[in-house]
Amino acid sequence: MRICIVGCGAVGSLFAANLAQLDDVEVWAFDTSQPHVDAINGHGLRLSGAGDVVGDVQATTDASSLPGCDFGIVATKAMHTRSAIAATAHAFKAGSVATVQNGLGNEEALAEYVGNVIRGTTFPAGRIVEPGHVQWDVRGDTTLGPFEPRPAAMADIERLADACTRGGMPTKAVADARGPQWRKVIFNASTNPIGALTGLTHGRVVERPDLRMLVSGLVDEGKAVAGAQGIVLDADPEELIDHAAKPEVAYDHKASMLQDVEARRSTEVDYLNGGIVRFGREHGVPTPLNQAIWALVKGVEDSWTI
Amino acid sequence: MRICIVGCGAVGSLFAANLAQLDDVEVWAFDTSQPHVDAINGHGLRLSGAGDVVGDVQATTDASSLPGCDFGIVATKAMHTRSAIAATAHAFKAGSVATVQNGLGNEEALAEYVGNVIRGTTFPAGRIVEPGHVQWDVRGDTTLGPFEPRPAAMADIERLADACTRGGMPTKAVADARGPQWRKVIFNASTNPIGALTGLTHGRVVERPDLRMLVSGLVDEGKAVAGAQGIVLDADPEELIDHAAKPEVAYDHKASMLQDVEARRSTEVDYLNGGIVRFGREHGVPTPLNQAIWALVKGVEDSWTI
Repeated sequence: MRICIVGCGAVGSLFAANLAQLDDVEVWAFDTSQPHVDAINGHGLRLSGAGDVVGDVQATTDASSLPGCDFGIVATKAMHTRSAIAATAHAFKAGSVATVQNGLGNEEALAEYVGNVIRGTTFPAGRIVEPGHVQWDVRGDTTLGPFEPRPAAMADIERLADACTRGGMPTKAVADARGPQWRKVIFNASTNPIGALTGLTHGRVVERPDLRMLVSGLVDEGKAVAGAQGIVLDADPEELIDHAAKPEVAYDHKASMLQDVEARRSTEVDYLNGGIVRFGREHGVPTPLNQAIWALVKGVEDSWTI
Repeated sequence: MRICIVGCGAVGSLFAANLAQLDDVEVWAFDTSQPHVDAINGHGLRLSGAGDVVGDVQATTDASSLPGCDFGIVATKAMHTRSAIAATAHAFKAGSVATVQNGLGNEEALAEYVGNVIRGTTFPAGRIVEPGHVQWDVRGDTTLGPFEPRPAAMADIERLADACTRGGMPTKAVADARGPQWRKVIFNASTNPIGALTGLTHGRVVERPDLRMLVSGLVDEGKAVAGAQGIVLDADPEELIDHAAKPEVAYDHKASMLQDVEARRSTEVDYLNGGIVRFGREHGVPTPLNQAIWALVKGVEDSWTI
């Protein structure tokens, strides 16, 4: 089976290197970073931290050189989904494409270019240390399921989940993956921008009663929007928020959006709070706090231009 | 008549220097900055910009040296009201004390220490250029009225307003000064923290539809809290917001709270959004957006400590 990772950053690399451990899987990676691609092709793709792995991955910055694949796993930042799938769609004419990205709207973007789409959510995390080398910070589960309007076949979703699990990335195939997806979106949308706007780590946000209350206000809106769509969350995002605030988990973690703001990179807020606001509008659920937070982060991004 | 300015920063200096132009007024100033006090005593208090004035003011950092005064005009930042009036109250045993400060709750703090309190709001603005010298950026009106629970006599309020007006600071004495006060509080609470959280100037906040909508959301909550108290705003804060965004007015103005955040100084958010939230609670009016903004700015202040 041939699998192409589209966007081989931190999360994409976790899938690529682990899947490359399997004899029956050939792993390709499409990424726009030439140094990263060169390092992978030269010495393999290396993970360290929560697991030490080196994977034999064929990497390229040239999408036209990709062979036909059975599966794609898209792992770009949400704002790059469209350009990444537009460039690589030809490789998935006979295949199925999964997203393991953050935020809402990625499946919809994939479905504009490919026929068989897999909704996905993943909790493992890492960061690129240097080209070809990714620090694996956190292990975690992945959930895959059909994207309802243009679904991949359930048997294919199960095949991909089985490969990921055998490779070392525990993955479940389910009929409705929206529960874990919305739980993660609500978690991210309710905590990431608060860190980004205040400069506080996750633990320090959670221990301030005024900010913790704001976080819960954002969570409540997200739950209402999920509920209006008939989505049953697989667990309460509040539990994850308090769990992550523990010193031994992620008290000192700077949210990825805070890291983006500090580096003056565009954030994923359009796909987190912006996504909740859009789905809220469609289903008649008011989301004033998510709207406020969305506007503030966009304002911060705007302040970097003259 | 003897008037003491308590807190002779930018706004206090506008009152001090202008009142000192009058033959029938002796002006004192209490301030904690020794260089500023020394410069005022050495060369007079100088204003330039919207008016060029030098005032003969007797300044001191030693509150115990203040003589008995007919009037006090408190112009400290809101978080310093209590300490400033605690130190100077002895000078106002037979006098009346007005606040021309930003925010809500200053009158209440004054009333803990002095008997005759004047509610006030002022629109002129400036900034300290160097000790003894204040740039007068914007002219504007002042409104004074009795603080209902411990009111100064209306005749005294009229005397102080008349002196200010004759000195060059147009001031009205009214029976109910809450309208202009709440208009200014709502204006400040709805725009200042948005600048502080995003880094954008007033004009750039207003021209972004998403942030302009957030500003209106904050204004609407403030209006509801004012309305629940029977306060009739003297004009719509929305007009002031759009007026100030004009290039020839204050498009490029960085809100004072943004200046505070950039300098890592405590902000007045507790007395702006925090004040609206507190009065909202007392009168059963929900203020979720002001609460969110209040929490975010407090989080920013918290991020400066380790």
